[in-house]
Amino acid sequence: MAKNVTPRSEDYSRWYTDIILQGKLADYSPVKGAMVIRPNGYAIWELIQQNLDRMFKETGHVNAYFPLLIPESFMHKEAEHVEGFSPECAVVTIGGGQVLEEKLYIRPTSETIIWSMYKKWIMSYRDLPLLYNQWANVIRWEMRTRLFLRTSEFLWQEGHTAHATPEETEAEALKMLQVYKTFAEEYLAIPVIAGRKSDSEKFAGAVHTYSIEAMMQDRKALQAGTSHNLGQNFAKAFDVKFQDQDGQQKYVYATSWGVSTRLIGALIMAHSDDNGLVLPPRMAQRPIVIVPIWRNDPEKESVISFADSIYRELKTGWNVIFDDRDQYKPGYKFAEWELQGIPLRLEIGPKDVEKNQVVMVRRDLMEKQFISRDGIFEIVKNSLEQMQIEMLEKARQFRETNSRNFDRYDELKDFLAAEGGFAHVHWCGNPACETKFKDDSNATIRTIPFDAVSEDGACIVCGKESGRRVIVARAY
Amino acid sequence: MAKNVTPRSEDYSRWYTDIILQGKLADYSPVKGAMVIRPNGYAIWELIQQNLDRMFKETGHVNAYFPLLIPESFMHKEAEHVEGFSPECAVVTIGGGQVLEEKLYIRPTSETIIWSMYKKWIMSYRDLPLLYNQWANVIRWEMRTRLFLRTSEFLWQEGHTAHATPEETEAEALKMLQVYKTFAEEYLAIPVIAGRKSDSEKFAGAVHTYSIEAMMQDRKALQAGTSHNLGQNFAKAFDVKFQDQDGQQKYVYATSWGVSTRLIGALIMAHSDDNGLVLPPRMAQRPIVIVPIWRNDPEKESVISFADSIYRELKTGWNVIFDDRDQYKPGYKFAEWELQGIPLRLEIGPKDVEKNQVVMVRRDLMEKQFISRDGIFEIVKNSLEQMQIEMLEKARQFRETNSRNFDRYDELKDFLAAEGGFAHVHWCGNPACETKFKDDSNATIRTIPFDAVSEDGACIVCGKESGRRVIVARAY
Repeated sequence: MAKNVTPRSEDYSRWYTDIILQGKLADYSPVKGAMVIRPNGYAIWELIQQNLDRMFKETGHVNAYFPLLIPESFMHKEAEHVEGFSPECAVVTIGGGQVLEEKLYIRPTSETIIWSMYKKWIMSYRDLPLLYNQWANVIRWEMRTRLFLRTSEFLWQEGHTAHATPEETEAEALKMLQVYKTFAEEYLAIPVIAGRKSDSEKFAGAVHTYSIEAMMQDRKALQAGTSHNLGQNFAKAFDVKFQDQDGQQKYVYATSWGVSTRLIGALIMAHSDDNGLVLPPRMAQRPIVIVPIWRNDPEKESVISFADSIYRELKTGWNVIFDDRDQYKPGYKFAEWELQGIPLRLEIGPKDVEKNQVVMVRRDLMEKQFISRDGIFEIVKNSLEQMQIEMLEKARQFRETNSRNFDRYDELKDFLAAEGGFAHVHWCGNPACETKFKDDSNATIRTIPFDAVSEDGACIVCGKESGRRVIVARAY
Repeated sequence: MAKNVTPRSEDYSRWYTDIILQGKLADYSPVKGAMVIRPNGYAIWELIQQNLDRMFKETGHVNAYFPLLIPESFMHKEAEHVEGFSPECAVVTIGGGQVLEEKLYIRPTSETIIWSMYKKWIMSYRDLPLLYNQWANVIRWEMRTRLFLRTSEFLWQEGHTAHATPEETEAEALKMLQVYKTFAEEYLAIPVIAGRKSDSEKFAGAVHTYSIEAMMQDRKALQAGTSHNLGQNFAKAFDVKFQDQDGQQKYVYATSWGVSTRLIGALIMAHSDDNGLVLPPRMAQRPIVIVPIWRNDPEKESVISFADSIYRELKTGWNVIFDDRDQYKPGYKFAEWELQGIPLRLEIGPKDVEKNQVVMVRRDLMEKQFISRDGIFEIVKNSLEQMQIEMLEKARQFRETNSRNFDRYDELKDFLAAEGGFAHVHWCGNPACETKFKDDSNATIRTIPFDAVSEDGACIVCGKESGRRVIVARAY
C-alpha cells in the first residue's frame, strides 16, 4: 500500500479528503454535489444506525416511512420553513413522461409531509404522544461538496414527535439531545457540548433548537446533532388539533431531531492521523487484523498454524481479519489496515511463535507491545475497551487545551483569526452583537451551553450585562 | 375495537385494503401514487431487512450507498434499460432554484449509476468480485396505487455484483435467488417456486431473469423477488474492463437482485383472514399479547399479579405486550390485537388464576387452548415454532390444491377465467404462443420452474414439441 496521505500540518482540508478516498470510505459521483458511500464508510453508518436505533427504541420510539416527494404547496404552509428550505430544494416537474400539475420537492426534511399525516391520525389526547422516527435520504442542494460534511444528498434519521403539553414537548427535545450526547461520547468517542442555539442559528420553524457541538482537530466546531422544540408551529400550519381531557380542541405540540452521515465526517476529523483513519473500537465492524509474517515455507507453516489458532479464538468475540495474502509484503499490509483505521493489529512472526507471544499495535498509539499468547482474548478485550476510553479522553483534552475565556474583543478576534478553538465569552443576547462575530471573524455563537456557570459579566461586543458565557468559534 | 374488515369472499381487493388501513400498516399519502408506511408496517420491513441483511453478509456481501439522482445521459447508455425504465421515471429539472443543464432521474433502479462507479474501481482481476448491496428507496411512476404492491415510491434492496467469469456470475444470480427462497419460506412462511422468466418477462437489460413466485389467497401469482444475470451488458454500456490473469482486457460480468416492500403485501395476502392480519411469529416484533381480565378490584389485584409474573417470565425471551388498559373491554382488546396480527394471545381471568392456567389463542387457528402456568415459557416457545411451520404448510397445501396440469387450451382458458390458480402447461418457447395467454386470459408465463420434471409434451397453444411444463397464471 503506497500511502499518500497529505499531512494535517501541510493541508488539513486535503488531509481530510485523502483519508476518505484512500481509506475507501467514499468517492465523488458523476452527479454534482452527490457522493457515493463505499463499503468501508457505510459500515460505519451501519454501526451508527444500529446503536442509535436501539437507543431510540429504548426511549419508546418506533420507526415509520414517509414519502420522498412533497407537494410544493406543503412547503409554503409554514412561513419560516419555506424561507429556510425552499431555495435549496431539488424539484421534480416531470413524472411518468408528463409535466406535473403541481411541482414536487424532494424532502430537505419531512416536517410538512409528516404533519399532513398527523392530521389524519391525531384526534384525541389518547392518540398522543406519537414518538416516530424515520431513517431516510434527503436532498439540500449544494455545489461546493465536502465529502460527508456537505453533500446534496445525505442519509439521516429524523425523529418527529407529537405531544399534548408544552412541558412534555420540551422534555422530549432535551431527552433526545441527551441520547445524541451519550452516543457521540460513548460510541464515536467524541466529547460534545450540549446547549441551546441562538435565535439566528435555530431551525427554520422551531421555537428552540438544541445542539451538540464538537471540536475537530483543526479546532473548528462541528454541529453533530440537533433537536428542536417546534411548539405548535407545524400543528397550526397543518391544522392539527386534538380533543384534550377537558374536552377542549387544542393544537398539538411537536419536536423534531436528527443526525446524519455528517457524523462520519466528524468521526474522521476528530481522531484520524497522518497514517489514515483511526476508528474507535465500537465504530469498527472489524476491530482486529492478524498479520502473519514469514520468509520461507517452513516458517510459513508454523506461523500460520500459530496465527490461525489465535484467529479461531478471537473470532468467537469479534469479526477478525486474517491477512495471509501471499502477494503483499507485511509493510504494505500494515499501511493498508492503518489507512482503513482497524483498531488493533496483531503481528506474528517466527520469533513470536518461539516465544509464545504476539506483537500488538493499537491504531491510536502506533506502538508495538509484546503480549503473551496465553490469555490473549482477555488482553485484546481490555485493550479495545481501554482504547475506546482513551480516545474520548484524548479528544476531551484537546478540546480543553483549545478552549479559553475571553473578555476583550481584540483578543477574541486574534484568537479566532488564528483558528484558536472555542472562545467562551459573555454575550448580551442581542443579534447585532452576534452578527459582529460573523462579520469580523467568520465565527458564530455555536451554543449557549447548558452547563455554563452563572457568572456576572459584560457582553464582549457592547458591554451590556450578561449572566453566563456562550461559545464562539469558526465552524463546519 | 370496531372491526370493519370486508370479508375476502365479498370483495378480496377491499379486504386487502381494510387489513392494511385498520391494522395501521400503511396509509395513503397526499402525494399521488405514494404511501406512508406506518409503524406496524415498518416493523415488518425491519425484520425483513435484518434477516436478509444477515443472509447477504453470510454470503460475503457488503453494503454501500449510491446517489438517488441519475443523469439523463446515463439512462440512455443501455438501450433496453432506457426503453424499460425511462417512461416511468420522476425527473428533477430544478435544483437550488436554477433550471438544470442536464435532467436528473430519480433512480428507478441503480445499475447505471453503480456501473459508472465500478468503472473507477475495477482495474484488475484482483478487484473482483465486487459483492455490493444497497438498501434504498426508488421511484417508478404509478397512478393506480395498491398499497405495498404498487406504489410510485417503494423501499427495497438492490444487490449489484461484478465478476470476472460468466460461470461465477451465473452462480451468483442463482445463489441469491436461493437466499430469497429460503427467506420467503423460513421467515415469511410463503412457499415459492424458483425458476427462470421467459424473455418477454425479463428485466430490461438482463441476459436471464430468475424469480420466486408465490400464490396469494385469491389464487393469483405474485413475483416476490428477482435475480438477474446481466452478462456484460452494463459493462459494455459503461466501458468497464479489467485486466485478467492472462493480461487481456475483458469486460466485467454483472448480476443484480432485489426484493422490496412488496413482500409486505405478499405476507398480508398469503396469510391474513377476515379478522385482520395474521403474522408468522418470525415476522412479528411483538409476538405475544397478555390480556388480563377482571370484573372488580379484588379480582383485578389477583389477576394482574398472576399475569404480571407471566409477563416478566416471557419478556426474557420476547417483546411482550401487557394490555392492562382500564378503559377498554377484553373483546375490544382481542379485536385490536387480532387486526394487528399478534401471533399469540394469552387471556387470564380470575378462574384461570384459581386453576393456575392460561387461555392461549393462536392467531392462525383462533381456538382457545388451556395451558398450564407451569412451564409456560416452553409451551409458548413451542407454540410459536409450531405456528411458523404450520403456516408455511397451510400455504403450501393451498397452492398445491390450486395448481393443475392442463393439456387442452379450452380447459386452461376456463381455469384462468375462473381465477383457478397455477396452470402447469407445455409451451414451445415461442413468444407468439405466450402472447396468446395474455390476450385471451390476461395471464402470463410466471416462471419456467427449476424443478419441473422432464416430460415430453406438446405446446398447449400451437402443439409444437416441449420438454417440460411452465406455470401460467394471472398475477399481481
